[in-house]
Amino acid sequence: MEELRLSDFPILYTTQAVNEDGIEGHAYIPNGLEVAVSSPLKAVPGSNPEQLIGLALSTCLNATLEAIEKEHGQTHQSKVVTTVKMSRDRFGYQFFLDARVTIPEVDAETAARWLAIAETRCPVAKLVGPSANVTIQLA
Amino acid sequence: MEELRLSDFPILYTTQAVNEDGIEGHAYIPNGLEVAVSSPLKAVPGSNPEQLIGLALSTCLNATLEAIEKEHGQTHQSKVVTTVKMSRDRFGYQFFLDARVTIPEVDAETAARWLAIAETRCPVAKLVGPSANVTIQLA
Repeated sequence: MEELRLSDFPILYTTQAVNEDGIEGHAYIPNGLEVAVSSPLKAVPGSNPEQLIGLALSTCLNATLEAIEKEHGQTHQSKVVTTVKMSRDRFGYQFFLDARVTIPEVDAETAARWLAIAETRCPVAKLVGPSANVTIQLA
Repeated sequence: MEELRLSDFPILYTTQAVNEDGIEGHAYIPNGLEVAVSSPLKAVPGSNPEQLIGLALSTCLNATLEAIEKEHGQTHQSKVVTTVKMSRDRFGYQFFLDARVTIPEVDAETAARWLAIAETRCPVAKLVGPSANVTIQLA
């Protein structure tokens, strides 16, 4: 099957995310969410890229699981907890993401199947999943 | 040079990001940031995974550029605007990320070199950069 191109799928939504301040200050969506950010290594209140990418993965994956639950006539009960760790790397820093998934209303085999389906559908899982630093698994 | 393993770099920071509600409700950091989320396709106020991953990339990359500016004795002036687009995919959905970088205090050649260095250091750029759906470039 030939690979599909961007133009084969119409764009359904566009947003912009801005950082002017750097690591300490605010990041924002024009006319939308504003988040105070700070270095995770300093005692300054604020969120940081670790938390923001963790929230993106947890929300995207759990929204996808919610859709799969609905397709199977189930009430939404799934949960995703992503642990993000940061360390130095050969150059700069690196993140490690470990998403743990709970789907309490089904048996382990079904949960594993639903999670595998979710990973093929969830945009954030598709962006970060190929990295050796990322794991997505049942809790 | 042999590849370095996780254990070669001590973990400097750990956080968790939780989504229980699915696409509509809240996502949160335990004892930290709580973000209202909603489907970008519905007229319900809230952030979404598109905005959150955009904020993560813009903040991480601009924080890295800020560090490079400081190393060169420059006052912080860089800015990152990430445009995130969403469309259907062969399965589910996909995101397209386009990060545009401004470093106004240096010439274009220097800006390109600093950006190339930043991409080797920034953890979020390293996670998403290999995807064909992601571009990072000077504005």
